[in-house]
Amino acid sequence: MLLSGGLDSATVAAWLQREGYSVIGLSIDYGQRHAVELQAAARIAAALDLDEHLVMRLDMRVFGASALTADIDVPKAGDASSDVDADIPVTYVPARNTIFLSLALGLAESRGAHDLGIGVNALDYSGYPDCRPDFVAKFAELANLATREGVEGRPIELHTPLLHLSKLEILQLAHELHVPVADTISCYDPSVSGTACGLCDACRLRLQAEAAYEEFQS
Amino acid sequence: MLLSGGLDSATVAAWLQREGYSVIGLSIDYGQRHAVELQAAARIAAALDLDEHLVMRLDMRVFGASALTADIDVPKAGDASSDVDADIPVTYVPARNTIFLSLALGLAESRGAHDLGIGVNALDYSGYPDCRPDFVAKFAELANLATREGVEGRPIELHTPLLHLSKLEILQLAHELHVPVADTISCYDPSVSGTACGLCDACRLRLQAEAAYEEFQS
Repeated sequence: MLLSGGLDSATVAAWLQREGYSVIGLSIDYGQRHAVELQAAARIAAALDLDEHLVMRLDMRVFGASALTADIDVPKAGDASSDVDADIPVTYVPARNTIFLSLALGLAESRGAHDLGIGVNALDYSGYPDCRPDFVAKFAELANLATREGVEGRPIELHTPLLHLSKLEILQLAHELHVPVADTISCYDPSVSGTACGLCDACRLRLQAEAAYEEFQS
Repeated sequence: MLLSGGLDSATVAAWLQREGYSVIGLSIDYGQRHAVELQAAARIAAALDLDEHLVMRLDMRVFGASALTADIDVPKAGDASSDVDADIPVTYVPARNTIFLSLALGLAESRGAHDLGIGVNALDYSGYPDCRPDFVAKFAELANLATREGVEGRPIELHTPLLHLSKLEILQLAHELHVPVADTISCYDPSVSGTACGLCDACRLRLQAEAAYEEFQS
Protein backbone atom coordinates (compact mmCIF):
# COMPACT_ATOMS: atom_id res chain seq x y z
CA MET A 1 0.00 0.00 0.00
CA LEU A 2 1.01 3.59 -0.59
CA LEU A 3 2.00 5.28 2.65
CA SER A 4 2.45 9.02 2.36
CA GLY A 5 2.75 10.02 6.00
CA GLY A 6 -0.67 11.69 5.93
CA LEU A 7 -3.75 10.79 7.92
CA ASP A 8 -5.52 9.06 5.05
CA SER A 9 -2.89 6.51 4.10
CA ALA A 10 -2.13 5.80 7.78
CA THR A 11 -5.82 4.99 8.21
CA VAL A 12 -5.76 2.68 5.19
CA ALA A 13 -2.75 0.86 6.66
CA ALA A 14 -4.58 0.26 9.95
CA TRP A 15 -7.74 -0.74 8.07
CA LEU A 16 -5.82 -3.32 6.00
CA GLN A 17 -4.32 -4.74 9.20
CA ARG A 18 -7.79 -5.06 10.72
CA GLU A 19 -8.88 -6.90 7.56
CA GLY A 20 -6.12 -9.39 8.26
CA TYR A 21 -3.50 -8.34 5.71
CA SER A 22 0.25 -8.21 6.25
CA VAL A 23 1.05 -4.69 5.15
CA ILE A 24 4.06 -3.38 3.21
CA GLY A 25 4.12 0.41 3.15
CA LEU A 26 5.61 2.05 0.06
CA SER A 27 6.56 5.72 0.30
CA ILE A 28 7.74 7.68 -2.70
CA ASP A 29 10.47 10.25 -2.29
CA TYR A 30 9.49 12.25 -5.37
CA GLY A 31 11.22 15.52 -4.66
CA GLN A 32 8.21 16.90 -2.80
CA ARG A 33 8.78 20.07 -0.85
CA HIS A 34 6.96 18.47 2.08
CA ALA A 35 9.66 15.81 2.51
CA VAL A 36 9.00 15.71 6.26
CA GLU A 37 6.01 13.55 5.32
CA LEU A 38 8.52 10.75 4.65
CA GLN A 39 9.64 10.99 8.28
CA ALA A 40 5.99 10.83 9.30
CA ALA A 41 5.56 7.72 7.13
CA ALA A 42 8.45 6.04 8.95
CA ARG A 43 6.93 6.93 12.34
CA ILE A 44 3.55 5.52 11.29
CA ALA A 45 5.10 2.35 9.89
CA ALA A 46 6.85 1.81 13.22
CA ALA A 47 3.80 2.70 15.34
CA LEU A 48 1.52 0.36 13.37
CA ASP A 49 4.23 -2.31 13.21
CA LEU A 50 3.96 -2.73 9.43
CA ASP A 51 5.69 -5.78 7.97
CA GLU A 52 7.93 -3.58 5.86
CA HIS A 53 8.36 0.07 4.94
CA LEU A 54 10.11 0.88 1.67
CA VAL A 55 11.07 4.29 0.37
CA MET A 56 11.55 4.60 -3.36
CA ARG A 57 13.20 7.62 -4.93
CA LEU A 58 11.60 9.10 -8.01
CA ASP A 59 12.75 12.44 -9.29
CA MET A 60 9.49 13.95 -10.54
CA ARG A 61 11.16 17.37 -10.64
CA VAL A 62 12.19 16.41 -14.18
CA PHE A 63 8.54 17.16 -15.04
CA GLY A 64 8.12 20.47 -13.20
CA ALA A 65 4.61 21.95 -13.44
CA SER A 66 3.25 21.46 -9.92
CA ALA A 67 3.31 23.52 -6.75
CA LEU A 68 4.34 20.40 -4.81
CA THR A 69 7.50 19.77 -6.77
CA ALA A 70 8.33 22.96 -8.68
CA ASP A 71 9.18 26.33 -7.31
CA ILE A 72 5.64 27.72 -7.11
CA ASP A 73 4.11 28.98 -3.87
CA VAL A 74 1.58 26.71 -2.19
CA PRO A 75 -1.76 28.57 -2.14
CA LYS A 76 -2.91 29.68 1.31
CA ALA A 77 -6.28 30.65 2.73
CA GLY A 78 -7.51 33.83 1.13
CA ASP A 79 -5.33 33.54 -1.99
CA ALA A 80 -7.23 33.91 -5.23
CA SER A 81 -5.55 30.69 -6.40
CA SER A 82 -6.57 28.71 -3.32
CA ASP A 83 -7.42 25.08 -4.04
CA VAL A 84 -10.59 24.29 -2.21
CA ASP A 85 -13.12 25.61 -4.66
CA ALA A 86 -11.10 25.25 -7.86
CA ASP A 87 -11.93 22.48 -10.30
CA ILE A 88 -8.43 21.04 -10.27
CA PRO A 89 -5.99 22.40 -7.67
CA VAL A 90 -2.59 23.76 -8.66
CA THR A 91 -1.02 21.40 -6.12
CA TYR A 92 -1.96 18.53 -8.42
CA VAL A 93 1.12 16.50 -9.42
CA PRO A 94 0.87 15.22 -13.01
CA ALA A 95 -0.38 11.62 -13.10
CA ARG A 96 0.74 11.12 -9.51
CA ASN A 97 -1.68 8.42 -8.44
CA THR A 98 -1.24 6.58 -11.73
CA ILE A 99 2.52 6.59 -11.22
CA PHE A 100 2.39 5.68 -7.53
CA LEU A 101 -0.16 2.91 -8.03
CA SER A 102 1.98 1.52 -10.86
CA LEU A 103 4.96 1.41 -8.53
CA ALA A 104 2.84 -0.29 -5.86
CA LEU A 105 1.70 -2.76 -8.51
CA GLY A 106 5.31 -3.54 -9.42
CA LEU A 107 6.14 -4.11 -5.78
CA ALA A 108 3.06 -6.28 -5.27
CA GLU A 109 3.89 -8.37 -8.30
CA SER A 110 7.49 -8.86 -7.25
CA ARG A 111 6.39 -9.99 -3.78
CA GLY A 112 3.54 -12.20 -4.92
CA ALA A 113 0.93 -9.93 -3.32
CA HIS A 114 -2.59 -9.63 -4.75
CA ASP A 115 -3.83 -6.59 -2.89
CA LEU A 116 -3.06 -2.89 -3.26
CA GLY A 117 -4.19 -0.11 -0.95
CA ILE A 118 -4.36 3.64 -1.41
CA GLY A 119 -5.97 6.40 0.65
CA VAL A 120 -7.76 8.20 -2.16
CA ASN A 121 -10.86 10.11 -1.25
CA ALA A 122 -13.39 11.30 -3.77
CA LEU A 123 -15.29 13.84 -1.69
CA ASP A 124 -12.76 16.24 -0.23
CA TYR A 125 -10.42 16.05 -3.21
CA SER A 126 -12.86 15.85 -6.05
CA GLY A 127 -10.69 18.27 -8.01
CA TYR A 128 -7.99 15.66 -8.57
CA PRO A 129 -8.96 13.50 -11.54
CA ASP A 130 -6.95 10.56 -10.20
CA CYS A 131 -8.91 10.41 -6.94
CA ARG A 132 -12.25 9.61 -8.56
CA PRO A 133 -14.05 6.25 -8.34
CA ASP A 134 -13.93 5.65 -12.09
CA PHE A 135 -10.16 6.18 -12.11
CA VAL A 136 -9.79 3.70 -9.26
CA ALA A 137 -11.97 1.12 -11.01
CA LYS A 138 -10.04 1.52 -14.26
CA PHE A 139 -6.68 1.11 -12.55
CA ALA A 140 -7.90 -2.17 -11.04
CA GLU A 141 -8.88 -3.37 -14.52
CA LEU A 142 -5.46 -2.36 -15.85
CA ALA A 143 -3.65 -4.12 -12.99
CA ASN A 144 -5.35 -7.36 -13.99
CA LEU A 145 -4.18 -7.03 -17.59
CA ALA A 146 -0.70 -5.78 -16.77
CA THR A 147 0.63 -8.55 -14.57
CA ARG A 148 1.43 -12.20 -14.57
CA GLU A 149 -0.84 -12.84 -11.57
CA GLY A 150 -3.69 -10.71 -12.86
CA VAL A 151 -3.66 -12.56 -16.18
CA GLU A 152 -2.95 -16.09 -15.01
CA GLY A 153 -3.63 -16.24 -11.32
CA ARG A 154 -5.70 -14.71 -8.60
CA PRO A 155 -7.10 -11.28 -9.51
CA ILE A 156 -5.45 -8.20 -8.06
CA GLU A 157 -7.67 -6.13 -5.81
CA LEU A 158 -7.34 -2.41 -5.20
CA HIS A 159 -8.52 -1.39 -1.72
CA THR A 160 -9.75 2.18 -1.28
CA PRO A 161 -11.66 2.12 2.02
CA LEU A 162 -11.75 5.92 2.29
CA LEU A 163 -13.06 6.56 -1.22
CA HIS A 164 -16.51 7.75 -0.18
CA LEU A 165 -15.80 8.96 3.36
CA SER A 166 -15.77 12.58 4.51
CA LYS A 167 -12.71 13.92 6.33
CA LEU A 168 -14.69 13.66 9.57
CA GLU A 169 -15.53 10.01 8.88
CA ILE A 170 -11.88 9.31 8.10
CA LEU A 171 -10.84 10.89 11.39
CA GLN A 172 -13.45 8.81 13.23
CA LEU A 173 -12.20 5.65 11.53
CA ALA A 174 -8.60 6.60 12.32
CA HIS A 175 -9.39 6.93 16.04
CA GLU A 176 -11.42 3.70 16.01
CA LEU A 177 -8.39 1.90 14.50
CA HIS A 178 -5.95 3.50 16.94
CA VAL A 179 -4.01 5.23 14.18
CA PRO A 180 -1.29 7.45 15.68
CA VAL A 181 -3.03 10.56 14.37
CA ALA A 182 -0.54 12.94 15.95
CA ASP A 183 2.28 11.28 13.98
CA THR A 184 0.62 11.96 10.63
CA ILE A 185 1.18 15.14 8.67
CA SER A 186 -1.22 16.47 6.05
CA CYS A 187 0.32 19.90 5.42
CA TYR A 188 1.54 20.75 1.91
CA ASP A 189 3.99 23.34 3.22
CA PRO A 190 5.30 22.36 6.67
CA SER A 191 8.30 23.90 8.38
CA VAL A 192 11.57 21.98 8.18
CA SER A 193 10.86 20.60 11.65
CA GLY A 194 7.50 19.26 10.44
CA THR A 195 5.13 21.82 11.93
CA ALA A 196 1.97 22.21 9.84
CA CYS A 197 1.41 25.67 8.36
CA GLY A 198 -2.28 25.62 9.27
CA LEU A 199 -3.15 27.68 6.20
CA CYS A 200 -2.78 25.51 3.10
CA ASP A 201 -5.79 23.64 1.76
CA ALA A 202 -4.72 20.30 3.23
CA CYS A 203 -4.34 21.92 6.66
CA ARG A 204 -7.67 23.70 6.38
CA LEU A 205 -9.52 20.51 5.46
CA ARG A 206 -7.89 18.68 8.34
CA LEU A 207 -8.54 21.47 10.87
CA GLN A 208 -12.19 21.60 9.81
CA ALA A 209 -12.45 17.83 10.29
CA GLU A 210 -10.75 18.00 13.70
CA ALA A 211 -13.12 20.73 14.82
CA ALA A 212 -16.08 18.67 13.64
CA TYR A 213 -14.68 15.59 15.39
CA GLU A 214 -14.27 17.46 18.70
CA GLU A 215 -17.81 18.74 18.39
CA PHE A 216 -19.05 15.23 17.59
CA GLN A 217 -17.26 13.84 20.67
CA SER A 218 -18.68 16.39 23.09
CA MET B 1 7.57 8.69 -25.88
CA LEU B 2 9.53 6.01 -24.08
CA LEU B 3 13.01 5.68 -25.56
CA SER B 4 14.90 2.63 -24.35
CA GLY B 5 17.87 2.64 -26.68
CA GLY B 6 16.58 -0.45 -28.47
CA LEU B 7 15.54 -0.82 -32.09
CA ASP B 8 11.81 -0.75 -31.39
CA SER B 9 11.57 2.52 -29.51
CA ALA B 10 14.00 4.21 -31.94
CA THR B 11 11.67 3.17 -34.74
CA VAL B 12 8.66 4.60 -32.88
CA ALA B 13 10.52 7.90 -32.43
CA ALA B 14 11.21 8.15 -36.16
CA TRP B 15 7.63 7.10 -36.95
CA LEU B 16 6.22 9.83 -34.68
CA GLN B 17 8.46 12.38 -36.40
CA ARG B 18 7.17 11.26 -39.80
CA GLU B 19 3.62 11.68 -38.47
CA GLY B 20 4.52 15.31 -37.74
CA TYR B 21 4.99 15.19 -33.96
CA SER B 22 7.65 17.02 -31.96
CA VAL B 23 9.16 14.20 -29.96
CA ILE B 24 10.39 14.18 -26.36
CA GLY B 25 12.22 10.95 -25.53
CA LEU B 26 11.96 9.69 -21.95
CA SER B 27 14.47 7.08 -20.84
CA ILE B 28 14.25 5.40 -17.46
CA ASP B 29 17.40 4.63 -15.54
CA TYR B 30 15.84 1.85 -13.47
CA GLY B 31 18.93 0.05 -12.27
CA GLN B 32 18.97 -2.22 -15.29
CA ARG B 33 22.09 -4.28 -15.79
CA HIS B 34 22.06 -3.25 -19.45
CA ALA B 35 22.64 0.42 -18.59
CA VAL B 36 24.57 0.89 -21.84
CA GLU B 37 21.13 1.10 -23.44
CA LEU B 38 20.86 4.57 -21.88
CA GLN B 39 23.94 5.60 -23.86
CA ALA B 40 22.31 4.16 -26.96
CA ALA B 41 19.17 6.19 -26.19
CA ALA B 42 21.24 9.37 -26.06
CA ARG B 43 22.90 8.52 -29.40
CA ILE B 44 19.51 7.86 -31.02
CA ALA B 45 18.01 11.07 -29.60
CA ALA B 46 20.92 13.02 -31.09
CA ALA B 47 20.85 11.18 -34.45
CA LEU B 48 17.08 11.68 -34.86
CA ASP B 49 17.35 15.25 -33.54
CA LEU B 50 14.56 14.76 -30.95
CA ASP B 51 13.21 17.92 -29.34
CA GLU B 52 14.31 16.74 -25.93
CA HIS B 53 15.74 13.66 -24.26
CA LEU B 54 15.14 13.20 -20.55
CA VAL B 55 16.55 10.50 -18.31
CA MET B 56 14.63 9.76 -15.15
CA ARG B 57 16.09 7.69 -12.35
CA LEU B 58 13.91 5.05 -10.75
CA ASP B 59 15.43 2.52 -8.43
CA MET B 60 13.40 -0.58 -9.25
CA ARG B 61 16.00 -2.70 -7.46
CA VAL B 62 13.91 -2.05 -4.34
CA PHE B 63 11.55 -4.65 -5.84
CA GLY B 64 14.04 -7.34 -6.84
CA ALA B 65 12.49 -10.36 -8.60
CA SER B 66 13.66 -9.93 -12.19
CA ALA B 67 16.69 -11.05 -14.12
CA LEU B 68 17.04 -7.53 -15.54
CA THR B 69 17.39 -5.81 -12.19
CA ALA B 70 18.24 -8.45 -9.61
CA ASP B 71 21.26 -10.69 -9.42
CA ILE B 72 19.90 -13.54 -11.55
CA ASP B 73 21.64 -14.77 -14.71
CA VAL B 74 20.09 -13.74 -18.01
CA PRO B 75 19.02 -16.94 -19.80
CA LYS B 76 21.02 -17.78 -22.91
CA ALA B 77 20.32 -20.01 -25.90
CA GLY B 78 20.14 -23.62 -24.82
CA ASP B 79 19.38 -22.89 -21.17
CA ALA B 80 16.37 -24.75 -19.83
CA SER B 81 15.09 -21.41 -18.55
CA SER B 82 15.44 -19.67 -21.92
CA ASP B 83 12.70 -17.16 -22.59
CA VAL B 84 11.56 -17.68 -26.12
CA ASP B 85 9.13 -20.53 -25.59
CA ALA B 86 8.15 -19.79 -22.01
CA ASP B 87 4.75 -18.28 -21.27
CA ILE B 88 6.20 -15.31 -19.40
CA PRO B 89 9.97 -14.80 -19.54
CA VAL B 90 12.07 -14.49 -16.38
CA THR B 91 13.47 -11.23 -17.78
CA TYR B 92 10.05 -9.68 -17.20
CA VAL B 93 10.30 -6.63 -14.90
CA PRO B 94 7.27 -6.35 -12.62
CA ALA B 95 4.70 -3.92 -14.03
CA ARG B 96 7.40 -2.26 -16.11
CA ASN B 97 5.31 -0.92 -18.97
CA THR B 98 2.59 0.22 -16.56
CA ILE B 99 5.19 2.15 -14.58
CA PHE B 100 7.00 3.56 -17.61
CA LEU B 101 3.79 4.60 -19.37
CA SER B 102 2.62 6.27 -16.16
CA LEU B 103 5.83 8.28 -16.04
CA ALA B 104 5.42 9.20 -19.72
CA LEU B 105 1.86 10.24 -18.92
CA GLY B 106 3.07 12.48 -16.10
CA LEU B 107 5.60 14.08 -18.43
CA ALA B 108 3.01 14.54 -21.17
CA GLU B 109 0.58 16.12 -18.76
CA SER B 110 3.17 18.51 -17.38
CA ARG B 111 4.15 19.60 -20.90
CA GLY B 112 0.62 19.88 -22.26
CA ALA B 113 1.16 16.97 -24.68
CA HIS B 114 -1.71 14.72 -25.78
CA ASP B 115 0.20 11.88 -27.36
CA LEU B 116 2.24 9.05 -25.89
CA GLY B 117 4.38 6.57 -27.80
CA ILE B 118 5.81 3.19 -26.84
CA GLY B 119 7.48 0.45 -28.88
CA VAL B 120 5.50 -2.49 -27.56
CA ASN B 121 5.13 -5.43 -29.83
CA ALA B 122 2.60 -8.18 -29.29
CA LEU B 123 3.99 -10.84 -31.60
CA ASP B 124 7.59 -11.40 -30.65
CA TYR B 125 7.07 -10.70 -26.95
CA SER B 126 3.69 -12.24 -26.39
CA GLY B 127 4.92 -13.64 -23.09
CA TYR B 128 4.93 -10.20 -21.47
CA PRO B 129 1.42 -9.40 -20.25
CA ASP B 130 2.05 -5.66 -20.57
CA CYS B 131 2.85 -5.85 -24.30
CA ARG B 132 -0.58 -7.12 -25.34
CA PRO B 133 -3.16 -5.08 -27.27
CA ASP B 134 -5.75 -5.24 -24.50
CA PHE B 135 -3.23 -3.86 -22.00
CA VAL B 136 -2.41 -1.01 -24.37
CA ALA B 137 -6.09 -0.19 -24.94
CA LYS B 138 -6.78 -0.24 -21.20
CA PHE B 139 -3.87 2.07 -20.45
CA ALA B 140 -5.24 4.58 -22.96
CA GLU B 141 -8.62 4.45 -21.19
CA LEU B 142 -6.90 4.99 -17.86
CA ALA B 143 -4.86 7.93 -19.18
CA ASN B 144 -8.09 9.67 -20.13
CA LEU B 145 -9.52 9.26 -16.63
CA ALA B 146 -6.29 10.06 -14.81
CA THR B 147 -5.45 13.47 -16.15
CA ARG B 148 -6.76 16.99 -16.36
CA GLU B 149 -6.52 17.00 -20.15
CA GLY B 150 -8.02 13.56 -20.59
CA VAL B 151 -10.99 14.50 -18.42
CA GLU B 152 -11.56 18.08 -19.55
CA GLY B 153 -9.72 18.60 -22.79
CA ARG B 154 -8.47 16.78 -25.84
CA PRO B 155 -8.23 13.00 -25.37
CA ILE B 156 -4.82 11.48 -24.81
CA GLU B 157 -3.72 9.05 -27.51
CA LEU B 158 -1.34 6.18 -27.04
CA HIS B 159 0.65 5.40 -30.20
CA THR B 160 1.91 1.85 -30.62
CA PRO B 161 2.81 1.60 -34.31
CA LEU B 162 4.78 -1.64 -33.83
CA LEU B 163 2.09 -3.49 -31.92
CA HIS B 164 1.24 -5.98 -34.65
CA LEU B 165 4.50 -6.00 -36.63
CA SER B 166 7.00 -8.85 -36.78
CA LYS B 167 10.64 -8.16 -35.95
CA LEU B 168 11.36 -8.28 -39.68
CA GLU B 169 8.66 -5.71 -40.41
CA ILE B 170 10.03 -3.48 -37.64
CA LEU B 171 13.50 -3.70 -39.16
CA GLN B 172 12.08 -2.85 -42.59
CA LEU B 173 10.24 0.14 -41.13
CA ALA B 174 13.37 1.24 -39.26
CA HIS B 175 15.40 1.27 -42.48
CA GLU B 176 12.60 3.03 -44.37
CA LEU B 177 12.58 5.76 -41.67
CA HIS B 178 16.39 6.05 -41.66
CA VAL B 179 16.65 4.98 -38.02
CA PRO B 180 20.31 4.71 -37.00
CA VAL B 181 19.92 0.96 -36.52
CA ALA B 182 23.60 0.44 -35.67
CA ASP B 183 23.24 2.85 -32.73
CA THR B 184 20.47 0.81 -31.14
CA ILE B 185 21.09 -1.99 -28.70
CA SER B 186 18.63 -4.78 -27.99
CA CYS B 187 20.82 -7.07 -25.87
CA TYR B 188 19.75 -7.88 -22.29
CA ASP B 189 23.31 -8.64 -21.23
CA PRO B 190 25.81 -6.52 -23.19
CA SER B 191 29.45 -6.04 -22.26
CA VAL B 192 30.37 -2.84 -20.43
CA SER B 193 31.47 -1.37 -23.75
CA GLY B 194 28.04 -2.09 -25.22
CA THR B 195 28.78 -5.14 -27.35
CA ALA B 196 25.73 -7.39 -27.69
CA CYS B 197 26.13 -10.89 -26.25
CA GLY B 198 24.47 -12.50 -29.28
CA LEU B 199 23.00 -15.23 -27.13
CA CYS B 200 20.21 -13.80 -25.00
CA ASP B 201 16.65 -13.93 -26.26
CA ALA B 202 16.60 -10.28 -27.34
CA CYS B 203 19.79 -10.83 -29.36
CA ARG B 204 18.45 -14.03 -30.90
CA LEU B 205 15.21 -12.37 -32.00
CA ARG B 206 17.13 -9.47 -33.48
CA LEU B 207 19.69 -11.68 -35.24
CA GLN B 208 16.88 -13.77 -36.72
CA ALA B 209 15.21 -10.59 -37.99
CA GLU B 210 18.46 -9.26 -39.44
CA ALA B 211 19.09 -12.54 -41.25
CA ALA B 212 15.53 -12.45 -42.64
CA TYR B 213 16.00 -8.83 -43.67
CA GLU B 214 19.24 -9.59 -45.50
CA GLU B 215 17.52 -12.47 -47.25
CA PHE B 216 14.56 -10.26 -48.13
CA GLN B 217 16.91 -7.59 -49.57
CA SER B 218 18.80 -10.01 -51.79
